[in-house]
Amino acid sequence: MEQRLSYLKQHLQQNDIGMAFIQGKANLFYFTGFRCEPHERLVSLMVFPNAEPCLVCPNMEVSLAKEAGWQLDIIGYSDHENPWEKIQQFTSDISFQGTMLGIEGELLSFSRAEQLKNAFPLTEWTKLDNIFMDLRLIKNEKEISVLREAAKLADFGVEVGVHALQSGRTEMEILSMIEFELKRKGISEMSFGTLVLSGEQSANPHGKPSMKTIQKGEFILFDLGVVLEGYCSDITRTVGFGAISDEQQKIYNTVLKAQLDTLEMCKEGTILGELDRKARSIITDAGYGDFFPHRIGHGLGTEVHELPSLNENNSDVLKVGMCFTIEPGIYVPSVGGVRIEDDVLITTDGYECLTAYPKELQMIK
Amino acid sequence: MEQRLSYLKQHLQQNDIGMAFIQGKANLFYFTGFRCEPHERLVSLMVFPNAEPCLVCPNMEVSLAKEAGWQLDIIGYSDHENPWEKIQQFTSDISFQGTMLGIEGELLSFSRAEQLKNAFPLTEWTKLDNIFMDLRLIKNEKEISVLREAAKLADFGVEVGVHALQSGRTEMEILSMIEFELKRKGISEMSFGTLVLSGEQSANPHGKPSMKTIQKGEFILFDLGVVLEGYCSDITRTVGFGAISDEQQKIYNTVLKAQLDTLEMCKEGTILGELDRKARSIITDAGYGDFFPHRIGHGLGTEVHELPSLNENNSDVLKVGMCFTIEPGIYVPSVGGVRIEDDVLITTDGYECLTAYPKELQMIK
Repeated sequence: MEQRLSYLKQHLQQNDIGMAFIQGKANLFYFTGFRCEPHERLVSLMVFPNAEPCLVCPNMEVSLAKEAGWQLDIIGYSDHENPWEKIQQFTSDISFQGTMLGIEGELLSFSRAEQLKNAFPLTEWTKLDNIFMDLRLIKNEKEISVLREAAKLADFGVEVGVHALQSGRTEMEILSMIEFELKRKGISEMSFGTLVLSGEQSANPHGKPSMKTIQKGEFILFDLGVVLEGYCSDITRTVGFGAISDEQQKIYNTVLKAQLDTLEMCKEGTILGELDRKARSIITDAGYGDFFPHRIGHGLGTEVHELPSLNENNSDVLKVGMCFTIEPGIYVPSVGGVRIEDDVLITTDGYECLTAYPKELQMIK
Repeated sequence: MEQRLSYLKQHLQQNDIGMAFIQGKANLFYFTGFRCEPHERLVSLMVFPNAEPCLVCPNMEVSLAKEAGWQLDIIGYSDHENPWEKIQQFTSDISFQGTMLGIEGELLSFSRAEQLKNAFPLTEWTKLDNIFMDLRLIKNEKEISVLREAAKLADFGVEVGVHALQSGRTEMEILSMIEFELKRKGISEMSFGTLVLSGEQSANPHGKPSMKTIQKGEFILFDLGVVLEGYCSDITRTVGFGAISDEQQKIYNTVLKAQLDTLEMCKEGTILGELDRKARSIITDAGYGDFFPHRIGHGLGTEVHELPSLNENNSDVLKVGMCFTIEPGIYVPSVGGVRIEDDVLITTDGYECLTAYPKELQMIK
């Protein structure tokens, strides 16, 4: 944390920024170690170029912030107090160095921006989203070891799901068994709503699990991940339940080839857009180009979707320490959908696949 | 939906607003019936005073929006397209009536506000948060019947949790059993992270469930809720595990009295702040005034925290159709915490308690 804060302070000093106002959940966690769910209540970190940073949070979160390791100033407030007044009191003693107010453009609300404008003598805005994203883009050893463990738990979740496949069970029943096993191991948060989708449902990349019972001859698609110590995993596997048709096999093999061939391009220096184009060309050549409606992947870290964005137009290059998903998919309405997704880390040797659940086509009897 | 949209259109016509731009998840659901998790992708509804509304969403969400019942225009976009360009194309054919751009001040990000400013010939901002909140504040019969069912499922969750109490079990194990039973019934989303807190953990109003095993002589606090058809429930119950001390009993009885006496004030016309003050005076008189750090409750609907805010300074009055929680609590660090929370609906006769799990002190052997 200390290193991250001093990097940020240096950036403020060099760019005439009088304060950075941070209130996005993932950024707050990144700079304070404190991960909280304040709902509509304000939790924010103020970082100054030449003064100690200060955290603002509801009184009842103060002890949690300290437990999480935050040792610097905290302004607590109760539900009947106005946190902006307390912020103003605090900052009235500060002689601001720098004229600009650094904010999270993507995360700060219009109304909070107005409050800030009223509360501070800093008149110009500057967006710090890219600074935060760039910092978070490259994972350090400690982050990598947590991401590795989070990925293992995602593997475990798929394993539970595959074992749970049985005629007469519903998607939601299988989902409940997966989350049960993960939660009793201590996972208090999934990184997003777990998906267990069968048959035609699997053909919708963002379909919702339901009380539909699974049927022989269907694809069953699992998409899930956990949050472990603030870091996310995200895996997708698709299996056949009972015997599947030749066309289903062709779809599966196409997605698998797209996934494996794209993985092989994952190394330092590869242009990100090429990864998407590679998978897309394999899928298009097989005749399914119209049925791959999303990008090949997304960054992974303290958020389950963060930078880099692996869309076909991204001209940035892969760097050591980047972590992201590779997840081609084909979704044919009447036939079903297949997606295969791994969590990938760029290493000095090329890449490391953090998720490891087998990818060969399984047909569960 | 139609009625809500026509109410909004009328408001736009009467207030010189050329477009309402809606992108908060709960508001989108309220006006479209479509509840989605777009992560960083833009999903928004544009409502015009004199033209049909139009939904903007990623291509892969289009069919889900239609399934959810949205029958009007949709602009879909893929991951490599810029939705703002597509919005601009669409609106370039519209001759705007009204000069202002209506937004969700609390929810629209600074950066999206900039995009809007660039994309539209409307130059002044007006915040519609209060309009949306006022609409959502009073629940209709259909909403009430869903809220009732959601509350019953919350009761069921507590029942499962209480039955699961057993020496040697961890908080997370008990939590996993609660969610397992709810999810296999088809509940795909809890309304917030379920809490099962024991002993000293229960003394933290926003503590986190852990791998701590529950011990005889401790309070066990359950706080949970489900999302059913887009509507939330939220219940808290606290039970004794094994015999508890006289002080623990006193704390429990104080919270229960505060909860019951506050409920009795729930009827049309009561000033909201009085509810908080009532509970606070009972808790203060018992000597625990310093250990009740939050407001007495919050509104409940398509979000688990919405209006009304039941803090001591709120001078609004209760109206028929309002739905909210009443949840006093006392949290004494070395002794443990107690919170008792119900979901309450204001009716023409007074109030209806939607949650019904018993509140007398239970000591589980």
